[in-house]
Amino acid sequence: MGKVGVILSGCGVFDGSEIHEAAATLIALAQHGIEYQCMAPDREFDVIDHRTQQPTGEKRNVLTESARIARGEIVDLKGVNGADYDALLLPGGFGAAKNLCTFAMNGADCEVDPQVERVLREANDAGKPIGFMCIAPALGAKVFGGKGVKVTIGHDAGTAVAIGQTGATHVEADAEAIVEDDANNIVSNPAYMEAQNPAQVYAGISALVENIVSRIR
Amino acid sequence: MGKVGVILSGCGVFDGSEIHEAAATLIALAQHGIEYQCMAPDREFDVIDHRTQQPTGEKRNVLTESARIARGEIVDLKGVNGADYDALLLPGGFGAAKNLCTFAMNGADCEVDPQVERVLREANDAGKPIGFMCIAPALGAKVFGGKGVKVTIGHDAGTAVAIGQTGATHVEADAEAIVEDDANNIVSNPAYMEAQNPAQVYAGISALVENIVSRIR
Repeated sequence: MGKVGVILSGCGVFDGSEIHEAAATLIALAQHGIEYQCMAPDREFDVIDHRTQQPTGEKRNVLTESARIARGEIVDLKGVNGADYDALLLPGGFGAAKNLCTFAMNGADCEVDPQVERVLREANDAGKPIGFMCIAPALGAKVFGGKGVKVTIGHDAGTAVAIGQTGATHVEADAEAIVEDDANNIVSNPAYMEAQNPAQVYAGISALVENIVSRIR
Repeated sequence: MGKVGVILSGCGVFDGSEIHEAAATLIALAQHGIEYQCMAPDREFDVIDHRTQQPTGEKRNVLTESARIARGEIVDLKGVNGADYDALLLPGGFGAAKNLCTFAMNGADCEVDPQVERVLREANDAGKPIGFMCIAPALGAKVFGGKGVKVTIGHDAGTAVAIGQTGATHVEADAEAIVEDDANNIVSNPAYMEAQNPAQVYAGISALVENIVSRIR
């Protein structure tokens, strides 16, 4: 087995990667005996106080904070070629929709971080599978909407409409279900867009990782 | 079933709670259908850059950063009575040995945060089980060494000696094993003190949580 890239967007559900989702992703990969490399863009983000859910006015760095989830073992996306990995995985959290792209603010008209878009396209062009979790499928929709990608973020109607405006097709799914787009080799899972607790997140992400692994082997 | 208290010490292995351990704890509790309440002390800590492992000179707040792991649902230890919970669980990470007590700097002569010590004693006095993971058993040793508590932090000889100096007994154990002290109703697991990957952490912590649950029911 080779190595899977895990693209992070910070550390914490309200301004970064959702922590339970990211940890479940790494646990599931290790259960399959698969090595992973965490990676993130080197850019600033606006800190949200997770007790009050209000902005603090402080800036932190996406790569530096993502390193907390990665226990220090992380690389800058700038040096990554997406084709060098057997698969890419993107946990959710608001970071995926605010730091990796601006979907949370701009919907289908959002911009995508250039390094994130490049790495995703490199992997996809090389036929490598990509797994998107929680709100991250909206980022996948923006990047691969032109290819008519099919993704799920669960049952949220407003988000589904915005995903449709990218050219992508939204498919409803429950917390522990996955949606497979075989033509584009893209798999998605709603995670905390639907999950009521960390056990449901773990079950859904385990199913997604198992499916991604089946596409590698 | 009632509710289990999870005592956090920040968010990130080098200056707070180890994230995979904390997430595995919450996942395992939810798998057993058990509600949890995350809690942390309201105090400052020294930030470590997780890419370089060097101090940044910045201070952050243990309670505020722990809220990232708890998705905002967290309470100040000051308002907690340990006897009100069916069990307490303490994930590891350097935060457990630097923010909850000073074991990382002072070994057996360390000081314990007064709120942490009070809540642990309240739970223990009420006969509630407590589970310590990774380096957190050193904190358990400091608080309950006078009762001759038996704990594990794995196979690290230097740490084991310091634990012995508290009056506690150290028992060696592998990553996925637990050590039970039935007399004191305390269980421990080495987690990342021994684990080589997140799957081993998940397996060990799942075993610890299952044991703690058996002590509640």
